[in-house]
Amino acid sequence: MSADCLFCKIVAGTIPSTQVYSDEEFYAFRDINPGAPTHVLIVPRAHIANITDVSAQDAPLVGRMFLRANEIAEQEGLTKNGFRYVLNYGPWAGQSVFHIHLHILGGRPMAWPPG
Amino acid sequence: MSADCLFCKIVAGTIPSTQVYSDEEFYAFRDINPGAPTHVLIVPRAHIANITDVSAQDAPLVGRMFLRANEIAEQEGLTKNGFRYVLNYGPWAGQSVFHIHLHILGGRPMAWPPG
Repeated sequence: MSADCLFCKIVAGTIPSTQVYSDEEFYAFRDINPGAPTHVLIVPRAHIANITDVSAQDAPLVGRMFLRANEIAEQEGLTKNGFRYVLNYGPWAGQSVFHIHLHILGGRPMAWPPG
Repeated sequence: MSADCLFCKIVAGTIPSTQVYSDEEFYAFRDINPGAPTHVLIVPRAHIANITDVSAQDAPLVGRMFLRANEIAEQEGLTKNGFRYVLNYGPWAGQSVFHIHLHILGGRPMAWPPG
């Protein structure tokens, strides 16, 4: 845990969130500023600042994050029409929290290019 | 390999592409209809149709795809200002090829929401 990390505080429950999924490795919650009718963020409980910080040792964790995200997409009813997964890095992508988070967006048709 | 899969044919070299990266597990190439100044697709050589088809056994492969994508982002000069990773599932996300592909987009500021 990183003391000044918003998502570590959300995972720890010291900042409230609308929980969507939780297990020993991951926590998922609704984005407070949704970009689609369904907009969930899934984060590893372990603090990893950026997707570019993922080590070879962390790679299976990243893979498992997608297994859990797939379950959430199913649970949220997104698999019939489709959904988009987004991971941002850096200012041009609009990354604002430095704790890896996978965006799961669905519930409407998504345009292309993706932003 | 799936006989009627566009990306399997690209990986096999029977359909031409502009290669960006290649190893035993992954192949990356430029999107022919780029959505940003830099738009690369990285795909596993193994045919997996959809991100929702990833099994627990495949999870480390998905994680390694991000390790390789991070290397490509660095190689493409995207890490200074940032970049976006996108994975689409289904018609509302605009998925058009049924072989897992991670979009790597950068070279300009990306808007939000992501499409």
